[in-house]
Amino acid sequence: MRFHRDPISVAEAQRRILAFAGKNKVEHVPLTESEGRRLAEPIRATNDVPHFPKSPYDGFAVRAEDTAGASLEKPVELEVVGAIACGDAPDFTVGKGQAARIMTGAAIPEGADCVIMFEMTTENEARVEKVVGVKKEMKAGENVIEVGEEKKSGDLLVEAGKRIGPGEMAILATFGYAEVPVYQLPRIGILATGSELLMPEEPLRYGKIRNSNSYMTASQVRQAGGIPVLYGNLQDDPDEAVERVLTILEETDMLITSGGVSVGDFDIMVEVFKRLDVDLLFNKIAMRPGSVTSAARYNDAFIFGLSGNPGACFVGFELFVRPLLQAMQGKPETGLKEMEAVLGVDMKKPSSFPRYVRSSWKIEDGKAVVYPVGQDKSGVVTNITDANCLMCIPPGGSGVAKGDTVTVLMLPYNVGE
Amino acid sequence: MRFHRDPISVAEAQRRILAFAGKNKVEHVPLTESEGRRLAEPIRATNDVPHFPKSPYDGFAVRAEDTAGASLEKPVELEVVGAIACGDAPDFTVGKGQAARIMTGAAIPEGADCVIMFEMTTENEARVEKVVGVKKEMKAGENVIEVGEEKKSGDLLVEAGKRIGPGEMAILATFGYAEVPVYQLPRIGILATGSELLMPEEPLRYGKIRNSNSYMTASQVRQAGGIPVLYGNLQDDPDEAVERVLTILEETDMLITSGGVSVGDFDIMVEVFKRLDVDLLFNKIAMRPGSVTSAARYNDAFIFGLSGNPGACFVGFELFVRPLLQAMQGKPETGLKEMEAVLGVDMKKPSSFPRYVRSSWKIEDGKAVVYPVGQDKSGVVTNITDANCLMCIPPGGSGVAKGDTVTVLMLPYNVGE
Repeated sequence: MRFHRDPISVAEAQRRILAFAGKNKVEHVPLTESEGRRLAEPIRATNDVPHFPKSPYDGFAVRAEDTAGASLEKPVELEVVGAIACGDAPDFTVGKGQAARIMTGAAIPEGADCVIMFEMTTENEARVEKVVGVKKEMKAGENVIEVGEEKKSGDLLVEAGKRIGPGEMAILATFGYAEVPVYQLPRIGILATGSELLMPEEPLRYGKIRNSNSYMTASQVRQAGGIPVLYGNLQDDPDEAVERVLTILEETDMLITSGGVSVGDFDIMVEVFKRLDVDLLFNKIAMRPGSVTSAARYNDAFIFGLSGNPGACFVGFELFVRPLLQAMQGKPETGLKEMEAVLGVDMKKPSSFPRYVRSSWKIEDGKAVVYPVGQDKSGVVTNITDANCLMCIPPGGSGVAKGDTVTVLMLPYNVGE
Repeated sequence: MRFHRDPISVAEAQRRILAFAGKNKVEHVPLTESEGRRLAEPIRATNDVPHFPKSPYDGFAVRAEDTAGASLEKPVELEVVGAIACGDAPDFTVGKGQAARIMTGAAIPEGADCVIMFEMTTENEARVEKVVGVKKEMKAGENVIEVGEEKKSGDLLVEAGKRIGPGEMAILATFGYAEVPVYQLPRIGILATGSELLMPEEPLRYGKIRNSNSYMTASQVRQAGGIPVLYGNLQDDPDEAVERVLTILEETDMLITSGGVSVGDFDIMVEVFKRLDVDLLFNKIAMRPGSVTSAARYNDAFIFGLSGNPGACFVGFELFVRPLLQAMQGKPETGLKEMEAVLGVDMKKPSSFPRYVRSSWKIEDGKAVVYPVGQDKSGVVTNITDANCLMCIPPGGSGVAKGDTVTVLMLPYNVGE
């Protein structure tokens, strides 16, 4: 195990993580509890749609041959032998010279082969009860939705790995998935390091600040489909640290820490990694912020050492933890969705590493334009509240200029809601 | 109360709903349970940030006057009188000719007025213990983050009504909000109507279909911050219907029904509205799909009668129920976020009403382009699974053509995740 620092690219770091990403176990949950989960199997049509010939309109089900010669001037009169509401299984046959009143979505009765809309009948002007005049010649099959016309039994409707939202819920219900196969939610232990940290409920003390990374990370974990488990703040005692880390790994699927990974005097996670003799995946990434982001495997579990800087911690989660959580829950394509956008302002800060800047994109004159959010300088997290993307600025040169095209990684926060 | 149908515009329908929208009660929840809720009060800084003068680097805290004349060739030697880690409240003073080792984020000790980075000292080459050589002249205040430099106590950080995500969690934790004031979640009763409907767990029967709208709506409600309460399917019996509706209104804040609102023979909600003598807000909207969407007030509660057609039910929720749920939870701007996009295909279907087409937008060559999803014709809901927006097509003429600019309402589904 080497603890010196070889910076690797973001893409290489992601590859090293995903190489060990296994899918979670599958469990079956009731339909009403499946929202937000990821499908462990594709959804297929379990029956033809419709599964009975169906009327698309309110009207009369008739035999096309009986309407020969019908016209506005000379309606053909048919005997009304019944009415079929939605949900009825018609228990009669439409014979020669007969018609059945039928509602939208109702099953076509035996004998009938087409549906004439109310508007083309004498429905509202009938002189004799139980008789309807048809004002138009019909063809067999006209206004009948045939069995399987919309979907065939077995048709693939939604791919495995898709997150269940309104559309998926509707399909699952339609096809009788009262129980839904989904991937288990990963349980993620979250631990902050640093003896300078107070809990949110503690009063401030000179020199100390409150832990914010754990709560931010918990929200990111939840929105990425994990269950966050908060383990408070770790003081800078290596023996205690090793013990806490081992306990957390027993109780959860993964540990995310923040802080303690740089090269300072009191970098506890570096010491923990050494004492546990972890399999280090990386401890330096060619990126800003968050170059000290570390990841390791211990037995079959991941330990992420995110930066203690809130902005870097946020970015580290999005670039490295999110793809893993997606893969564990069966999402075929991992990582944040990419798009191109035009830079709305100059970003002239030179950097030897690629930069991932918390930003906001919007459409201006039909074009995607992206702006950094808040003061770029500030270490505080207030600008995360406005970010809907990370802007990727390539290294070298003197930064990028207004009007340049940049790649943008779309965040799921601050979108439509 | 009039039950004839006067079509009103979508905007007018939204106005009539919002005219009655009151904010929910405020409750305080623990920070860890506040994620996804909407803030009932703005978040303000409860202290200066930093609240003590702080070092932005690892280095030595010194007195600028002591560094006069220091250079790479002629470092000034200072006595190291202590070390300050993050979180320490320094209990000593840096006097004339003295220095204190200091870590990033640690408090500047009394007496010192600047910080020199390790790189500009003899840190790694010290010949004498407890002595450090400073290789550069410093100015007072250099590399010191002053009290309140990032945020002042009382600064507005996040507006009321904002949904709590990772950035908001970080800020709440930073400023000691162990309990967070949020709006109560509205409880939404959901009821499907139609004797053709089966429950998802029931086997298919001829002429019948399974209820999918309730499950779709439940997902929409949850993602809009409500608590869905499913009440199953209502059969077409008016007495029972009235009783069920009254029970649901006692147990929830609002009722959403699907189906039973058109002009057919068995439109149960029309009958329920009549018997309860509701205050009808509207029962016809100039839009496709979902022109029969209805809304009413009964005592202080809303009843929404969404269309039984799944696509129309989906759109009806997004246009009319979502803004109300947002307003009840204090969101200042209600409704789906709008943007302009270029149409990627011809949509030549003429319509006398504005159309809201389930669609997907993406960026192509830097421009936002929008495409309808799935077969436009299909009444099935399979295309909702791919939609990330509703495309608004104005009425009249012969539809819109590829390349035309259209307004797009962004949905919070199928975004980054």
